[in-house]
Amino acid sequence: MHVLLSGRFEAREGEAWLRTLRAAAPWCTWWPEGAAGLPRDAIRAAVVANPAPGALGALPNLGLVQSLWAGVEKLLADVSLPAEVPLARMVDPAMSTAMAETALWAVLSLQRGFFDYAALQAATQWQPRPQRRADEVTVLVLGLGAMGRAVAMRLAAQGYRVSAWRASAASAAAPAAVASHAGSAVLETLLPVHEVVVNLLPLTPATRGLLGARFFAAMPRGGAIVNLARGAHLVDDDLLRALDDGHLRRAVLDVFTTEPLPAAHRYWRHPQVTLLPHVAALTDLRSASGVVAHNLQALRDGAPIAHLVDRARGY
Amino acid sequence: MHVLLSGRFEAREGEAWLRTLRAAAPWCTWWPEGAAGLPRDAIRAAVVANPAPGALGALPNLGLVQSLWAGVEKLLADVSLPAEVPLARMVDPAMSTAMAETALWAVLSLQRGFFDYAALQAATQWQPRPQRRADEVTVLVLGLGAMGRAVAMRLAAQGYRVSAWRASAASAAAPAAVASHAGSAVLETLLPVHEVVVNLLPLTPATRGLLGARFFAAMPRGGAIVNLARGAHLVDDDLLRALDDGHLRRAVLDVFTTEPLPAAHRYWRHPQVTLLPHVAALTDLRSASGVVAHNLQALRDGAPIAHLVDRARGY
Repeated sequence: MHVLLSGRFEAREGEAWLRTLRAAAPWCTWWPEGAAGLPRDAIRAAVVANPAPGALGALPNLGLVQSLWAGVEKLLADVSLPAEVPLARMVDPAMSTAMAETALWAVLSLQRGFFDYAALQAATQWQPRPQRRADEVTVLVLGLGAMGRAVAMRLAAQGYRVSAWRASAASAAAPAAVASHAGSAVLETLLPVHEVVVNLLPLTPATRGLLGARFFAAMPRGGAIVNLARGAHLVDDDLLRALDDGHLRRAVLDVFTTEPLPAAHRYWRHPQVTLLPHVAALTDLRSASGVVAHNLQALRDGAPIAHLVDRARGY
Repeated sequence: MHVLLSGRFEAREGEAWLRTLRAAAPWCTWWPEGAAGLPRDAIRAAVVANPAPGALGALPNLGLVQSLWAGVEKLLADVSLPAEVPLARMVDPAMSTAMAETALWAVLSLQRGFFDYAALQAATQWQPRPQRRADEVTVLVLGLGAMGRAVAMRLAAQGYRVSAWRASAASAAAPAAVASHAGSAVLETLLPVHEVVVNLLPLTPATRGLLGARFFAAMPRGGAIVNLARGAHLVDDDLLRALDDGHLRRAVLDVFTTEPLPAAHRYWRHPQVTLLPHVAALTDLRSASGVVAHNLQALRDGAPIAHLVDRARGY
């Protein structure tokens, strides 16, 4: 089976992916984008990571597009993506674990004041602060996909009081020990009683800009936002206003509408913003290559493809 | 029963302790140090937190000294401490939980590069770094008291490869999932194969200065020290040398030989030092007051006192 690897990688990252994917599915013939002799007519599957617009056109035999990333909103926006070809997202257990670790670090740092102690060290100030227990911290996890579930379970296991919210009641239920809610109506009643919001929603027309002025106003004073999903979920000016006027205590941001975040952006130097360069959960090529190999085998054998995207829903 | 509360508290902290202890053991008559009419002859128990030297002399009826802190090395150095009176340390489950949280935050931050990302934010640099899995990080926990055990178990539960070392084989065994070792001979073989060392030893003549040049040299290049026990475990100049010459990557320090740490100390501004103002695990008065009440009841009823200090051993 001829497989195309198409994406905008850092130079050596692309080579590492090709090497690891070849090892995971050696029965495939792997073609990096632009390779000499690439047999476009024979390509059965495309494994992609932010491919250049149009890269997936003119592949008449294409039977599967497998994304290496979990978020596929950019891919769905590419008009050259063939409408009839199945599209699979990356759902990598190692990636969910990494996301749970990042969320735990953020919530733990908020609970115990570790972000504040870092600022106090920078100011040469020895200033012990009151210590809070995990069960005194309420956390609302937005999104109950593989990553939202992993985050909610990890936080609940550490003793935080965790609720989870998903946009649609049709999605999977929450894990035990997590109070689960669905639909936009209930969100207004959840926000006032949760100190920390961790966002893991997919980016869809319905969730774009959800974290805006109205959302923040419904949160309790001293609340915190942890955005690990997509920059476009967040209205930057509204967040800055909520931080500046003291309504929100802190934002931990991993994702931005423009990445890399421009050097002039206020987030970089804002004392209440903790910023990560989109590293909350990197696809781990060691485990993700196994997920890809599994779906390529399914394509070859006519078996069900895992983690198919519902294009109407947008994820 | 007449009970003395003696310690150097912040003004309102002392009142909070007195109020909470009174509520936990209302059958006792509580006397703060220096109270008018304090009946020294009738005091049966002293509940102490860094009492002034000599505060425990001239209490002829004293049957128990109960520390509110876990570390008692200062108390043992007070010559006025009556040699024949039982001395109990604070072993508070909430304190062990707090210590486990701090250790987890430190190890998680080291694993995932969150300390480095904070420095990169300060320098306005967008620089994603490779992501490591928890099972790629080896952690050696020094000390297997209540806090060492809680730390080792919490870290093992998150997927880190955890070993534990205690000075004497006579102490309690390690929890399952943690490789356990005892005695000074084996320490030299453990250090080269563990990236992160988390110190939770009691401070005794045998452990004072243990974290020095020879210890650091035995650690792998790129290793990290997390000191959550006592400042005197650490030889500051040796640590600074190991950080400066790049042998060690980072030190997370909660405790110091002089506290508050003097403003001129190099630790404050060292880029490889993360500093906390002795807050890794504060005694939680809500649960600790229950521990105190339990021991006062035991004293009244002639039942065994919990968490007695072995003065020869030093903890």
